[in-house]
Amino acid sequence: MADLSLMERLTISGTTKIVLLVMDGLGGLPMTPDGLTELESAYRPNMNRLAAEGTLGLSVPVALGVSPGSGPAHLALFGYDPIHFDIGRGVLEAFGIGVPVGAQDVAARGNFCTVDAAGNITDRRAGRIKTEAALPIVEKLARVKLPECEVEVKPVKEYRFVVVFRGEGLSPEVDETDPQRTGVPPLPAQARTAAAERTAAIVNKWIAAAREAIRDDRPANALTLRGFSADPNLPKYREVYKLRAACTAVYPMYKGVSQLVGMDVQHFSGDTPADEFAHVKAIWNDYDFFFIHVKPTDSRGEDGDFAGKVKVIETVDAALPALLDLKPDVLIITGDHSTPAKLKAHSWHPVPLLLWAPATHMRDAAQEFGERACLTGGLGRFSAADLMPLALGHALRLERYGA
Amino acid sequence: MADLSLMERLTISGTTKIVLLVMDGLGGLPMTPDGLTELESAYRPNMNRLAAEGTLGLSVPVALGVSPGSGPAHLALFGYDPIHFDIGRGVLEAFGIGVPVGAQDVAARGNFCTVDAAGNITDRRAGRIKTEAALPIVEKLARVKLPECEVEVKPVKEYRFVVVFRGEGLSPEVDETDPQRTGVPPLPAQARTAAAERTAAIVNKWIAAAREAIRDDRPANALTLRGFSADPNLPKYREVYKLRAACTAVYPMYKGVSQLVGMDVQHFSGDTPADEFAHVKAIWNDYDFFFIHVKPTDSRGEDGDFAGKVKVIETVDAALPALLDLKPDVLIITGDHSTPAKLKAHSWHPVPLLLWAPATHMRDAAQEFGERACLTGGLGRFSAADLMPLALGHALRLERYGA
Repeated sequence: MADLSLMERLTISGTTKIVLLVMDGLGGLPMTPDGLTELESAYRPNMNRLAAEGTLGLSVPVALGVSPGSGPAHLALFGYDPIHFDIGRGVLEAFGIGVPVGAQDVAARGNFCTVDAAGNITDRRAGRIKTEAALPIVEKLARVKLPECEVEVKPVKEYRFVVVFRGEGLSPEVDETDPQRTGVPPLPAQARTAAAERTAAIVNKWIAAAREAIRDDRPANALTLRGFSADPNLPKYREVYKLRAACTAVYPMYKGVSQLVGMDVQHFSGDTPADEFAHVKAIWNDYDFFFIHVKPTDSRGEDGDFAGKVKVIETVDAALPALLDLKPDVLIITGDHSTPAKLKAHSWHPVPLLLWAPATHMRDAAQEFGERACLTGGLGRFSAADLMPLALGHALRLERYGA
Repeated sequence: MADLSLMERLTISGTTKIVLLVMDGLGGLPMTPDGLTELESAYRPNMNRLAAEGTLGLSVPVALGVSPGSGPAHLALFGYDPIHFDIGRGVLEAFGIGVPVGAQDVAARGNFCTVDAAGNITDRRAGRIKTEAALPIVEKLARVKLPECEVEVKPVKEYRFVVVFRGEGLSPEVDETDPQRTGVPPLPAQARTAAAERTAAIVNKWIAAAREAIRDDRPANALTLRGFSADPNLPKYREVYKLRAACTAVYPMYKGVSQLVGMDVQHFSGDTPADEFAHVKAIWNDYDFFFIHVKPTDSRGEDGDFAGKVKVIETVDAALPALLDLKPDVLIITGDHSTPAKLKAHSWHPVPLLLWAPATHMRDAAQEFGERACLTGGLGRFSAADLMPLALGHALRLERYGA
């Protein structure tokens, strides 16, 4: 498993450039026993040429059999063991919607729920209330003030929101208030440690005031909080890898994770792969490492839209020549996890990965980019968290270990 | 990763014999995109026959993406996790030339360098002074005495020597004095910990006296020290593996690592693979495990001499029948790391490995010994530190784990 202290010791500065192109949820499954996967079905002449020239493999995001969320899956790709660096949902959601979480802050993910007259939960997600209907209710929460600390509340999507508590001496060691079942009231926030007693008291005070503010709303007349968490203070790319890293992504969540590891989050116009590659061209001289994130592969997979996912892959392939014109020293094309349209969900299947580094790669026998071709690839199967060392090795950015 | 305590628990004595033949830096790369590697290019009928009969795999010396030095790479082959057992260059070099490093001693590797009138380094290797020219200068260093502790100085080769400081309360936590560039003076020895302050002071006192002794020599009129280290007290082959092990090697460094793990270092005449195999025949009845080291594959790789490296492999192949005549129960042919002539350096690429154990191996589909054939091999890809358990298993020298 990747060892950040070993990386920090071995990485050297250099002039080589690394591109990590992630098609979210790239890995797929055939819809029929004899069929092809989404990637295998796509018209992808550029990816196939790179596959024939380069070397393939399969990456395991977290552990065999385990389907990862986007946060841990990206942490792994970035070289951070997602079991060791277990980042709270509160912080991930906050970073994802652009709400800063400072060194002193504690963030939590909030869910609206419905309670009956006795205060017992009848629906843990408030009827999956629509975003537009939830916004004014979030507004009411945002107006709740406490003397003890600043509280920021922001909507996420549907019944979900984020709360950030800002003040001195706060602790994230607070249990969630969602009882995970109906027929009982939300739990009070409970401190896990003595140091978190004050935080739990503040949270409970805020919850009481917040419930008072929305008591007459329907169906969102109560709330639960979970994923209390603080900035994990991850080691940053510049220190660990000696890389100036840029994140070119459209969705907030991915910008959030990138920011947590010290990438510069880019602002650019447009939202297609071609727009993203054009932006990378514009900043090519300013960075060493370029993370590019393409979201709709995952969205189409979650929708069960096999053909739609194929089309997204084809859009990326068609745009690739602009990226190749930049002559990256190391180009990695992969996904953060699999999202087979067949399963309409993230899955645990190892993720196809293409590494192209003409000065240093070992060409394998694979002639195309696809799940089954990757099975025969020269990189074999490896933990996603080992990808960065591999990329750095192929970029000649690691010193020899020992004499 | 290999677990020495598990091995110590499971290994049993036996009569089977294991040969580990290491061609240093064996792994390679094609010089052109469509080309073959050094190993794939070599005429190697014996290795190919063994590959067709036996089973292949790829070993990862330290970690994916990481290029190892020879010390850690051999430790891994011998079953010692090279991240856990991080052995200093000073000790390795001292053991390599047969200079003992006791429990209280600190060893350092020395380089002669050339300094100008201002004391700034003009050549970090003193013009790669020949061994014969260096010997009398090493003699002068050896005559430098300190009241604080005993100091032994021995020549290694060309501009390199070894210094061992012997006394009570010494610590290896001292930084190297090589500034790694010219135009500046050597650095003073600096202690990394408070406990090493006295050692650093002694080292600096010795350096001052040593430089005075050689100030009028040319080009070796100064020196740098690096790799301060103490005996790592590694578990020994006889205890961990119940093996009587012999090292047949030409270069000091490899004799050094072998001695650290308790192998008997052999003295024999000649320096070719055929000479080494002849010696193994002579001691065949005295040992259970035979480590044979072939150096020039690595040297030719470092020189960027593709054809030269091919030739070395062919020399080994031509000599192999003499080794096979001994009928080893387990024969492993591999490298300690890759040294592609294309890169003129050690690299991180996994190392081709051939395991031939007619009584216990599982024949795979591979028909030749080469990097790409090993990709399809029956052993898959594994950490080099797992090789010894595999070898012992195939030699029927491991008890069942549990009932």
